[in-house]
Amino acid sequence: MLLQALYLVAIVVEAMSAALAAGRRSMDWVGVCMLGSVTALGGGSMRDILLGHYPLSWVAHPAYLLITAGAALFTIAIARVMHGLRNVFLVLDAIGLALFTVIGCNVALDMQLPFVIVIVSGMITGCVGGVLRDVLCNDIPLLFRSELYASVSVVAGALYVGGLAARLPHDGVMIAAMSAGLALRLLAIRYGWNMPKFVYTRDLH
Amino acid sequence: MLLQALYLVAIVVEAMSAALAAGRRSMDWVGVCMLGSVTALGGGSMRDILLGHYPLSWVAHPAYLLITAGAALFTIAIARVMHGLRNVFLVLDAIGLALFTVIGCNVALDMQLPFVIVIVSGMITGCVGGVLRDVLCNDIPLLFRSELYASVSVVAGALYVGGLAARLPHDGVMIAAMSAGLALRLLAIRYGWNMPKFVYTRDLH
Amino acid sequence: MLLQALYLVAIVVEAMSAALAAGRRSMDWVGVCMLGSVTALGGGSMRDILLGHYPLSWVAHPAYLLITAGAALFTIAIARVMHGLRNVFLVLDAIGLALFTVIGCNVALDMQLPFVIVIVSGMITGCVGGVLRDVLCNDIPLLFRSELYASVSVVAGALYVGGLAARLPHDGVMIAAMSAGLALRLLAIRYGWNMPKFVYTRDLH
Repeated sequence: MLLQALYLVAIVVEAMSAALAAGRRSMDWVGVCMLGSVTALGGGSMRDILLGHYPLSWVAHPAYLLITAGAALFTIAIARVMHGLRNVFLVLDAIGLALFTVIGCNVALDMQLPFVIVIVSGMITGCVGGVLRDVLCNDIPLLFRSELYASVSVVAGALYVGGLAARLPHDGVMIAAMSAGLALRLLAIRYGWNMPKFVYTRDLH
Repeated sequence: MLLQALYLVAIVVEAMSAALAAGRRSMDWVGVCMLGSVTALGGGSMRDILLGHYPLSWVAHPAYLLITAGAALFTIAIARVMHGLRNVFLVLDAIGLALFTVIGCNVALDMQLPFVIVIVSGMITGCVGGVLRDVLCNDIPLLFRSELYASVSVVAGALYVGGLAARLPHDGVMIAAMSAGLALRLLAIRYGWNMPKFVYTRDLH
Repeated sequence: MLLQALYLVAIVVEAMSAALAAGRRSMDWVGVCMLGSVTALGGGSMRDILLGHYPLSWVAHPAYLLITAGAALFTIAIARVMHGLRNVFLVLDAIGLALFTVIGCNVALDMQLPFVIVIVSGMITGCVGGVLRDVLCNDIPLLFRSELYASVSVVAGALYVGGLAARLPHDGVMIAAMSAGLALRLLAIRYGWNMPKFVYTRDLH
């Protein structure tokens, strides 16, 4: 199954990117494994906890945990060549974002939740892993002030939900939504598209 | 229903205050929406997750999410006049604290949980949204070192639970508990009442 | 029951250590109580939320909350003598780590989850409280870059699971696993054993 293979690639990519973030803070190997696993599996876990969708994917499939922890450790071994791969990783991360979004939408669709929640479920699946990584690294989440990322997930999710609501064929809608999300994300990276920022300098208190 | 209307006012107020906190950190519009929604709905969500009380309120009523995200965005538009409204917001936030507390107590009462948990459920509902906001903004939670806030929630919750245990009429007890909490909070703001601080300077390690 | 008594000692110790961390950041008394309770009970709570194991222990036994909050407050009163007790606390914390690990493994074993998850459940129970403490104190989790701690929990959990899988007698396996974990942790403290660190200085972006 292509989606399953893509999913494994996506969690490996997320874990490896997080491992580099851990390395920038000189974490030890245990920290690298944990940060990698939390980042790769945290979005889906948060979605499942918020929706009450048990068991969590990595509890049902412990191999996911071993894969993400292994990928994070492997990153330490090949750290020297990671810098040269950063464009590959940006593209793979964008594919992961589109894929996680659709997976998250599907979970909420299976639970027959309202469309707003379906889109939010996709966004949480795609984005929360990175938020957890940043909180654990003691940063303000990059998601809250970076290039289009959550918005890409919302757009892809809305296209997916809209297409299904219009009773278009499922596979076509899914591929179109993922492609649109991927394209939008890559264009945002390429041209540095940003959401406008809100700058407020007066103190409320 | 007055309580329902007050609830909507309270989540709008929480979302708008959080939007200003986002603006102080120059977050983008997506970050503003997310921080606003997490702050306004995070306390109730944390309560529901800890108590296993599904579905979460915003999953059952997606309009809440749209309202908090919309309120956060609206704050950007009226940022210029927000400073002049800060006293209004302090009062509305205090009302929200009292209201969230009672709502949280009611959830635990409906689940027939012990009184200690009922009071804690009220406090979590009233206070955790702000803790999540501060964690995501990379601050030490204000709750842990500011004017009476969590204590107000505990007092209001204890009055509510105590009144119900004494078999006093429900509506009267609720109004009395909320009023006491509101008064205590406003007095704490007005006179700068603080909990004593614990200052420990020797290093354990 | 010896285990029950040890459990109470362990949550008291965790709450008191966290209270000192709160005092180092000049939190107020409410913050001290909260940080103490979250640290002492947060690992088990996170495990239960991730595994969908309801009700959480402190919801079923509210006395745990009162004990941890009380222990945190008590720490303020005896802060002056805490520095002299720091070696006692290191040992008690190590016992707590071993105990929490076994308790967490047992929860997952009762739910008939796979062995990998049983070990992870033990590690989450033993370690996540400290991670939450550090996040709320706005630090990078010590767990991610300190002496052997999570690894001790993994080793103890693996010994426990392995022993049970080999159909050795339960009580003996439990005592052996906890003793091994305790010894490893104490040796790590005594000789400053660390996991190797991953230091990555090139920026990905």
